[in-house]
Amino acid sequence: MYGIQIDKNSIFTITRQLYDQLRNLILNNELKAGTKIPSSRNLSKELKISRIIVVEVYEQLIAEGFLNPRKGAGTFVADGAFLQNNKKDPVRSTSQAINTNKSSTNCFAEISFKIGIPDLSLFPVNKWIKVLKDVYQFAHLSHFGYTNPGGIAELKIKLAEYLLRSKGIRCYPEQVIILAGSSQCILTAAKLVADYSEKIIVEDPSYKKVYELLTSNQLKITPVPVDHQGIQISKIPENKKQLSMIITPSHHFPLGSILPIQRRIKLIEIVRNNQGYIIENDYDSEFKYTGQTVQALQTLDPDRVLHIGTFSETLFPSIRLGYLIVPVNLIAKCSTIVIKNELAVPSLNQLALAIFIEEGHLEKHINQMKKHYLKKRELLYSLLTDTFDNNIEILGDPTGLFLTVSFLNVEWNDKAINKLKEYQVNVDTVANHTIIKGKHKDKLILGFGSLSFKQIEEGINQLKKAVKDILAERV
Amino acid sequence: MYGIQIDKNSIFTITRQLYDQLRNLILNNELKAGTKIPSSRNLSKELKISRIIVVEVYEQLIAEGFLNPRKGAGTFVADGAFLQNNKKDPVRSTSQAINTNKSSTNCFAEISFKIGIPDLSLFPVNKWIKVLKDVYQFAHLSHFGYTNPGGIAELKIKLAEYLLRSKGIRCYPEQVIILAGSSQCILTAAKLVADYSEKIIVEDPSYKKVYELLTSNQLKITPVPVDHQGIQISKIPENKKQLSMIITPSHHFPLGSILPIQRRIKLIEIVRNNQGYIIENDYDSEFKYTGQTVQALQTLDPDRVLHIGTFSETLFPSIRLGYLIVPVNLIAKCSTIVIKNELAVPSLNQLALAIFIEEGHLEKHINQMKKHYLKKRELLYSLLTDTFDNNIEILGDPTGLFLTVSFLNVEWNDKAINKLKEYQVNVDTVANHTIIKGKHKDKLILGFGSLSFKQIEEGINQLKKAVKDILAERV
Repeated sequence: MYGIQIDKNSIFTITRQLYDQLRNLILNNELKAGTKIPSSRNLSKELKISRIIVVEVYEQLIAEGFLNPRKGAGTFVADGAFLQNNKKDPVRSTSQAINTNKSSTNCFAEISFKIGIPDLSLFPVNKWIKVLKDVYQFAHLSHFGYTNPGGIAELKIKLAEYLLRSKGIRCYPEQVIILAGSSQCILTAAKLVADYSEKIIVEDPSYKKVYELLTSNQLKITPVPVDHQGIQISKIPENKKQLSMIITPSHHFPLGSILPIQRRIKLIEIVRNNQGYIIENDYDSEFKYTGQTVQALQTLDPDRVLHIGTFSETLFPSIRLGYLIVPVNLIAKCSTIVIKNELAVPSLNQLALAIFIEEGHLEKHINQMKKHYLKKRELLYSLLTDTFDNNIEILGDPTGLFLTVSFLNVEWNDKAINKLKEYQVNVDTVANHTIIKGKHKDKLILGFGSLSFKQIEEGINQLKKAVKDILAERV
Repeated sequence: MYGIQIDKNSIFTITRQLYDQLRNLILNNELKAGTKIPSSRNLSKELKISRIIVVEVYEQLIAEGFLNPRKGAGTFVADGAFLQNNKKDPVRSTSQAINTNKSSTNCFAEISFKIGIPDLSLFPVNKWIKVLKDVYQFAHLSHFGYTNPGGIAELKIKLAEYLLRSKGIRCYPEQVIILAGSSQCILTAAKLVADYSEKIIVEDPSYKKVYELLTSNQLKITPVPVDHQGIQISKIPENKKQLSMIITPSHHFPLGSILPIQRRIKLIEIVRNNQGYIIENDYDSEFKYTGQTVQALQTLDPDRVLHIGTFSETLFPSIRLGYLIVPVNLIAKCSTIVIKNELAVPSLNQLALAIFIEEGHLEKHINQMKKHYLKKRELLYSLLTDTFDNNIEILGDPTGLFLTVSFLNVEWNDKAINKLKEYQVNVDTVANHTIIKGKHKDKLILGFGSLSFKQIEEGINQLKKAVKDILAERV
């Protein structure tokens, strides 16, 4: 009847099959308005299915307006339930797997000196699972409900304590805003200070994703050049009112310097005079291989500096946890931005991190990884100097998961980069992160966090071959 | 010397104590530029600490620019390392716990008919932990790294399959965008369609948070009144170009109706003619207590409808997982918005949900909870009719975790609401969710998902007393 087919082996119930087919017959005008439909008794006989099912489906179609019951006369197809050009079961299959997440097959051979990826294989996953399990089993039920945007109190408190121990930051837990990664923190901080500044000063070069994030959100930036000590104070435009800036003082990206105290003090004086703010993007100071972790710029003036950190390198990137420390007088405004943009982080992950910090696992892990990364860095350093001798200069402070190298005899233009790819080496350039183009063409950024010792060796070997080719072709 | 105090019982290392104190002496101008500092040998003797520590601290302070070594002459305090008004260790203690997350002590007594909160005590936490554990232990390392904004492929595929089974939605996995909760989905969808529409039509009444979210993001809204069947098509402004709308067709919030097929078809025709879009906010159709889940409006025209769903009610709110199904031609644009706003969801939670769906746990849990919530609804329904007789009308379709009740003899103004509070009952009103004020003053919204059977009984008992008072005071 009406071509209705019931398949008793389908993954869909008989009720659902009948409902879908009757609904589509009406929507497509194959069952026209005013048509009397068979009684439930007749249809159930015809289709050899239970009458209860037919009654149930008719009732639902009546409730949704497809059918009209008329007392004593039967049930009729309702007016206005026909849709022109109803997409008749568009053949959208879900079977086509998408592999956007998978690495390309090339990656087995390619050595990628990727930036910002920690050694994921050494994350203490069992400790983390244990904490997570405890959290799910013993957390108060309220942690499963709607919780504070901007982070749960437990993590704010533990982070404030940790930041005092690790970076000398003194802040109230209320100043700690937890967001889904440092980029979300940067965007939030930039929106926050944008009200107090026409343009935001950014270092040139600086991490491309950061300044692109600002400009894609209609925030205006002014690039200021960086030398071997960090941002050049003398190049900051003067007499600007309400000048704000985003900088990486602990370890400049990508040139690697620690901003000296004299420049730090001048920056503080500038924002004090201009009623502006400094956004301190501290993406990796945890991995400082010599001496103490540099005290945060934030400590010099907690009312003028917003401090940003991340757990992407200390835990793992996909945990999506970053923090933003805001001056006390910006807490309320920051909260408004977080709510307005519906930024949210799963509470139980936050609670797990709070306990992970409290039980000392975080600092223990960081200390172990520091030793591990130092070995990788030393290997990379010695391979580079052994291979390229006086033809390179290694820049910056021994901190973090990358090394920046200046080549005295190579310009890393497209052709040279393609040569690297031929040799299955994937390396980022400083030039890629410059805003005003034309400078820093001599420099490569070698991320080593996620590479094995063997891969580092192979990578430098391939780099050597590529450089040889590049130099040979130039002659 | 210089008042430096070393406390061997401090939580800070001796190195850190010396570094912090010397640094502060210079920053505060207590050690002035040009001052020659003691040799490491003398200082270590004086403070009775290891000379190696002093050397290490001096080296760090030299690296940071605080000190200047002059060959053969000693080490001197550098110029420009003095900061006017250095905040001298601001007394910011981290010991003040903040309790923003905790319920107030009143809550022990108060019965809160909260909207949108599931029964958290019945979430199958052990099954979830098991899946989560497997995910952390066996997931490919790439899931710990940076993953696709907008969701991982595994979850997109499983969700597309689930949505076909549950709501009849046919879509490619690429059309599924995973975000941190349905509000984030709504905001993203609204920004997406805003380019194609001057104003966005919203139902009046509708969930307050939704229209406030739109207006706080400078999106313009046009309220259209709702009757007992849902949005009133005849009240939609005609001849508007590029008209878009956000509606709740499966179960109107807060009036509870299912939008009939005739109105659905007219809405589709309107957006087809205007090149606009419908955002279908399906916040709770999973808990339909009679018949089949209503087929999504999206199935009528997948090219003109964006569909939004959430796991806040089917799992728990703080998991922060929602989904947005976009038409194929909006995928790229949606991705741009997600990236531009740095929206991100932890991958391993996503992967856990994908497996939770694949192993059938989600649908099993939903079916169990449906039975459980139906019992609560039936209790609430019978208590209401027993208590208030013909003085109330219960509105809407038996779906979801709330009941809307119209009182024929009470106006729920501030005074009446305060009376409820006196009786320790917390209830939301429909009037609270109206955009154009003055209507629906007779209606309460009773959320029952998170209340126990006993609490429901007590709550209605208190409500009865409050209503009695309100009626008595009016006379």
